[in-house]
Amino acid sequence: MEAYLDNSATTRCSKRVLEIVAKTMEDAYGNPSSLHVKGIEAEKYVKDAAKQIAKTLKAAEKEIVFTSGGTESNNLAVIGTALANKRAGKRIITTPIEHASVANPMGFLKEYGYEIIELPVDSDGILSLDALAEAMNEETILVSLMHVNNEIGAVEPIEAAAGIIHEQNPQTVFHVDAVQSYGKWKIRPKRDGIDLLSVSGHKLHGPKGVGFLYVKEKTKIKPLMFGGGQQSGMRSGTHNVPGIAGLGIAAEENYGQLEEKMENLFTLKSYFCKELQGFSDVDIHGKIDRESAPHIVNASFVGIRSEVLLHTLEDYGIFVSSGSACSSNKPAPSRTLSAIGLDAAQIDSAIRFSFSVNTTKEELDYTLERLREVLPKLRRYSRH
Amino acid sequence: MEAYLDNSATTRCSKRVLEIVAKTMEDAYGNPSSLHVKGIEAEKYVKDAAKQIAKTLKAAEKEIVFTSGGTESNNLAVIGTALANKRAGKRIITTPIEHASVANPMGFLKEYGYEIIELPVDSDGILSLDALAEAMNEETILVSLMHVNNEIGAVEPIEAAAGIIHEQNPQTVFHVDAVQSYGKWKIRPKRDGIDLLSVSGHKLHGPKGVGFLYVKEKTKIKPLMFGGGQQSGMRSGTHNVPGIAGLGIAAEENYGQLEEKMENLFTLKSYFCKELQGFSDVDIHGKIDRESAPHIVNASFVGIRSEVLLHTLEDYGIFVSSGSACSSNKPAPSRTLSAIGLDAAQIDSAIRFSFSVNTTKEELDYTLERLREVLPKLRRYSRH
Repeated sequence: MEAYLDNSATTRCSKRVLEIVAKTMEDAYGNPSSLHVKGIEAEKYVKDAAKQIAKTLKAAEKEIVFTSGGTESNNLAVIGTALANKRAGKRIITTPIEHASVANPMGFLKEYGYEIIELPVDSDGILSLDALAEAMNEETILVSLMHVNNEIGAVEPIEAAAGIIHEQNPQTVFHVDAVQSYGKWKIRPKRDGIDLLSVSGHKLHGPKGVGFLYVKEKTKIKPLMFGGGQQSGMRSGTHNVPGIAGLGIAAEENYGQLEEKMENLFTLKSYFCKELQGFSDVDIHGKIDRESAPHIVNASFVGIRSEVLLHTLEDYGIFVSSGSACSSNKPAPSRTLSAIGLDAAQIDSAIRFSFSVNTTKEELDYTLERLREVLPKLRRYSRH
Repeated sequence: MEAYLDNSATTRCSKRVLEIVAKTMEDAYGNPSSLHVKGIEAEKYVKDAAKQIAKTLKAAEKEIVFTSGGTESNNLAVIGTALANKRAGKRIITTPIEHASVANPMGFLKEYGYEIIELPVDSDGILSLDALAEAMNEETILVSLMHVNNEIGAVEPIEAAAGIIHEQNPQTVFHVDAVQSYGKWKIRPKRDGIDLLSVSGHKLHGPKGVGFLYVKEKTKIKPLMFGGGQQSGMRSGTHNVPGIAGLGIAAEENYGQLEEKMENLFTLKSYFCKELQGFSDVDIHGKIDRESAPHIVNASFVGIRSEVLLHTLEDYGIFVSSGSACSSNKPAPSRTLSAIGLDAAQIDSAIRFSFSVNTTKEELDYTLERLREVLPKLRRYSRH
């Protein structure tokens, strides 16, 4: 049996996504910027995808800027906003549990004189709204918060944060990294007060190498890449037609029967956590109720280094992650797990299980069974 | 009959490229940054592609940085070098005939206080080496030249330029935009004195949404995108495994039987130009001999607006380009055609025919036949 429980690292493409990518590569190979029908045929796939995505967000098609993925979307949001608003102020507010593709652009901006403020988070990884209200000022040009944390599945109070931000400074741009939530949550940027929203294709059964940034009309943001002026100048470069077409299909598919799928994921998570809680020396991190993300479970198997458990499970065809696994294979201590106050022993033994619509109860039972078998053995070895 | 003569805008994917993209999307869906075997399987495709590409350049695999395409490669080269070397100087040398994805990053840098010097080009679009020698100084941090011009197929004296640059200032970084030449020219960055080289996948029968920047070891350059630290930190973001695998195959295929393919393209170009020269009121721009690119012919059909001819040919299944066609559908006067001294009437009536390995003599004959038919008619209309 195989249990792929690393869906927050990447997901398997859906059948319809595979089909449209193959079809567009073969039949719609024109350059959407070409004036002839080969260009127009290719452009139609781009327009259709923008329409499919816009519909899921109740947004306008022109508010969708296609990028090469979540990393580019986050970089464009953070750096693009900073460059466009530098005369208005230099303060940027974020949290210590952001993905590296938000955290590291912040580091870059810091070198250029921007003031980066990290809000505290509690032991469940939830940011402090009081601290947000206090940090907001006239100089604040950007607040960047993730919606769902990629490591522990914490769900941040995005709407409440938006209220505070816009009340205190209507000029502040509010960016939400929705890489782990889009496709699972109903997000309505206009209703929710979101100006910029980052999404990655391959996290939602779409293609790798493609994503988008929702940019609310009239948001002040500058492009990071310059060239032929595609996408109203916000993102130059020949459109990745097959990738974009695949992303459109993935968006549509993810939002079909959404409630049913969420319900199913919550049931699986609840079952898995309950079983895990029956183990000894296992700590589950963050909330596990319906206020948490339904597809992420992070637990420390204290006394067993996470890489050892990861590779042991791998031998049984069970694929999980240690650390965030969205970063290159270099092991670095998790910023999120540190920020929620875990000690070194817990961080070193933390494993992330992440589910998708394809995950079954059988896979979880298989995983639990193997864990029951291997944990005592691994603990015995590690005590020697 | 159909004649796709817009291969400098984009090319049709090869069969092997289509196959590997479909295969990797289906079978190697892991995240190369994951520690388990799903990650390792995916990573192997990335490594193989780097190896295939490095071989074509006699370069090291670690010198290949995968990007989302030619535009990102050029932006990374120009802006990344400027940011990394700002303390060494502010002078950057380029030409007035660069692609927008070089020209517009230069415009961005100008706003930030960099001094951008454009070398003159002659009526064939060839840059002045004397002017280059004169413009070089101690403050020069970057020279960025295209290898083959995308509009008229001018081939720039890259090696001679490299000699001048490195002799006059060993610290200057030399970037070559090889988007229109890679896959058709033997390029040996180390031998040729090139520090950075930009390539786009979809111009060489590879996938859209992927490209690479060759970065010679120890070249001082900063990343433009920050995140998980993939590709030694030079380009964060989950690898676009299917795109990268496809690019590797395309690189390998393009360099197989290269001389034979070049010979064939030169024969086609020579034939096509000779026939065109027999028409009245047709001006071919730039060189058409073996010192020019074998796949690009640019000609003005004076008295007929290029868009009119483009759409007329389109009705016959012949696909060509007006302007550079690498930029978004907004019509803007061609910088290259202005720089080589054409008048407005010539620029307004210029058409680019661009060939690929799939182009046949039959397609060219068909195109010439249709031109013979339609040109007199269109001229009659336009004189009214």
